[in-house]
Amino acid sequence: MTLPGPLNPPSRLLMGPGPINADPRVLRAMSAALVGQYDPFMTHAMNEVMELYRRVFVTSHRQTLLVDSTSRGGIEAAFVSVLEPGDKVLVPVMGRFGHLLVEIAQRCGAEVHTVEVPWGQVAPYELIADAMEKVQPKLLAVVHGDTSTTVVQPFDGLSDLCQRYGTLLYADVTATIGGNEFLTDAWGVDIATGGLQKCLGGPSGSAPVTFSAHAEAVINSRKSIEAGIRAEGDAVASHPIRSNYFDMSMVFEYWSERRLNHHTEATTMLYGARECARIVLEEGLERFQARHLVHGRAMMAGVRGLGLGVFGDVEHKMTNIVGVVIPDGVDGEAVRGHLLQDFGIEIGTSFGPLHGKVWRIGTMGCNARQDAVLTTLAALESVLRREGFGLPAGGGVDEAYRVYAEATA
Amino acid sequence: MTLPGPLNPPSRLLMGPGPINADPRVLRAMSAALVGQYDPFMTHAMNEVMELYRRVFVTSHRQTLLVDSTSRGGIEAAFVSVLEPGDKVLVPVMGRFGHLLVEIAQRCGAEVHTVEVPWGQVAPYELIADAMEKVQPKLLAVVHGDTSTTVVQPFDGLSDLCQRYGTLLYADVTATIGGNEFLTDAWGVDIATGGLQKCLGGPSGSAPVTFSAHAEAVINSRKSIEAGIRAEGDAVASHPIRSNYFDMSMVFEYWSERRLNHHTEATTMLYGARECARIVLEEGLERFQARHLVHGRAMMAGVRGLGLGVFGDVEHKMTNIVGVVIPDGVDGEAVRGHLLQDFGIEIGTSFGPLHGKVWRIGTMGCNARQDAVLTTLAALESVLRREGFGLPAGGGVDEAYRVYAEATA
Repeated sequence: MTLPGPLNPPSRLLMGPGPINADPRVLRAMSAALVGQYDPFMTHAMNEVMELYRRVFVTSHRQTLLVDSTSRGGIEAAFVSVLEPGDKVLVPVMGRFGHLLVEIAQRCGAEVHTVEVPWGQVAPYELIADAMEKVQPKLLAVVHGDTSTTVVQPFDGLSDLCQRYGTLLYADVTATIGGNEFLTDAWGVDIATGGLQKCLGGPSGSAPVTFSAHAEAVINSRKSIEAGIRAEGDAVASHPIRSNYFDMSMVFEYWSERRLNHHTEATTMLYGARECARIVLEEGLERFQARHLVHGRAMMAGVRGLGLGVFGDVEHKMTNIVGVVIPDGVDGEAVRGHLLQDFGIEIGTSFGPLHGKVWRIGTMGCNARQDAVLTTLAALESVLRREGFGLPAGGGVDEAYRVYAEATA
Repeated sequence: MTLPGPLNPPSRLLMGPGPINADPRVLRAMSAALVGQYDPFMTHAMNEVMELYRRVFVTSHRQTLLVDSTSRGGIEAAFVSVLEPGDKVLVPVMGRFGHLLVEIAQRCGAEVHTVEVPWGQVAPYELIADAMEKVQPKLLAVVHGDTSTTVVQPFDGLSDLCQRYGTLLYADVTATIGGNEFLTDAWGVDIATGGLQKCLGGPSGSAPVTFSAHAEAVINSRKSIEAGIRAEGDAVASHPIRSNYFDMSMVFEYWSERRLNHHTEATTMLYGARECARIVLEEGLERFQARHLVHGRAMMAGVRGLGLGVFGDVEHKMTNIVGVVIPDGVDGEAVRGHLLQDFGIEIGTSFGPLHGKVWRIGTMGCNARQDAVLTTLAALESVLRREGFGLPAGGGVDEAYRVYAEATA
């Protein structure tokens, strides 16, 4: 094998369910020089990241920090730190990522109960309330926005239910954080875990997470400082957390003023995560979300303007993604292939029961903007026409323009 | 809180045990634009990474890839995928990272046996052989080079021992890979896990790993494809791996031509990991190691030229790090502080029994170069003199120059 040359990725407009194009400012931040693990600049940057993400999560939770893994690892860090074998967990399953929460909780040895609703629907409060009464779980684990189905789950009343049964409330906000309203404290959420690669406009590989004092206490009751660095008086739990890497009690110590050595913080990813949050807050969280809302609406209107159906409960649609019903007789993968190869535009396929039936088109992060929406709609129209699907000329772009006109009126 | 500005890290020469300065080419590679998770460019880049790291690990192991975590997560991924509760593990403990292997194996529920040697020594073959006969473990887990003590453990005979007892041989090469000879196949190593932040000259956050066919078979016997994406005929294990994120059987599928969805690959870290390996191989693995050897020698000679003692068994010293005995009456942390604040140079402190007694000075990656070595020695001399420690003027730099003169003679 000859040695491959330096990287030279093709130009892509990533309008799928994520990862999406990273904001150029995030990539620039990630090219900044490294400093040492305990350099005052580094520990200051860690503290800044905590404060920045408190504002993104709208929380005062002290333990708001990064897990050095993709968003999936953030979920596992939360679950494995909280759950002991045999602990009960309740998961409303509305799509692929509900299944993932079940899967991860089961790997932790938890006794997992589910309520299931058809993909594309939200779980009704009554369904969850009944199951909560029956199961009385240690953890209620809810996907806030499931990109596999494009719907966002209402959290009304969930915190009250959790208080009634002493349950911790967990939210997977990977796909929603930043671009959809999510109020950690106001909604009484104990634990939320996210990722950079959706609305926050960064690369996958770092998971912003937040833990309430209640969650922290549960986790710290299982604390066991590892032998190599244990000091006198340090905790040795009788039933320690079953992971070292994802042991949040030790990660909390690392991010505390004690700075107890754990992993070596992924500096470049931290730089990126810091810039992601900074960009959101510079625009302002509400304006950032409003922007996602208007471009998401424009995309949905454009899809309909092309004569295509929209999948799922649009009353509860996430701002940043739309499910598009693939018309009969159209080869969904052929369309995606032409969009990518000929136009450099990526849209998403689907998982499980929606595979081959639904495309998913995202409008998030720095791609939640007019030119990205209009270009995608025009390209989709071109490809569909060449695939032999009759559709109104310019109907997609026209409808999107109409939404923009209304938004600025 | 007002919003902090864009990142502007101070200029640092990172001459500690790692992380060290990232090679500027790696940081540039990490600012490349993202592509989609299954973009042909991305899957091609994943395949390139596999091939590049086979050459860095000197192996033909098919399963040579990245774990999306720091090097610590790479260790855990290997252990949790191989070890079932009650499995026996043998760990020679020569320093902090031996303790870490014990800790991680215990979290997996393994029955962990150790042989311990004083920090700064290697474990004699006979000691390991006796313990192997007694324990007959499923896994022999060895730190190749423990930065906490600066020594590199010989692997002679370990593979034969492992074959005798059907044991898998694991090596933690986080601190050695690239800059010290490590021959995965020739030494019969089944599993090795590394990191970017030492000799490879990248940031922490991605763990290159390699698994033999034997290790792969052990892991795949525990395979259980998660419910959300399970197809007919897919495995459901009776005793699944206790982690989803670190389930290497699923990670193998993701990196295979099947491309079964698991986590979302950390694209930017992968770009960085690819460039790290490319830089090593462009220089040539042997020349890369020879460079580490000469600059490591120059640093050690310089340290002695300053009248300072060198810690540990120097016959088995890693190429890329030297332990320096802090002289009596010198405040080690004050010296480190002045080096960092006044000269912008970082050297390392130590853990456990060596804390306050030994500094650790690294010469690795792009910092294994003459100007970095001479500058560090000159600065250390200045700081020590101002701390009141009498030492031969210019003796450190002179001795380093002498090594360079010999090396080019």
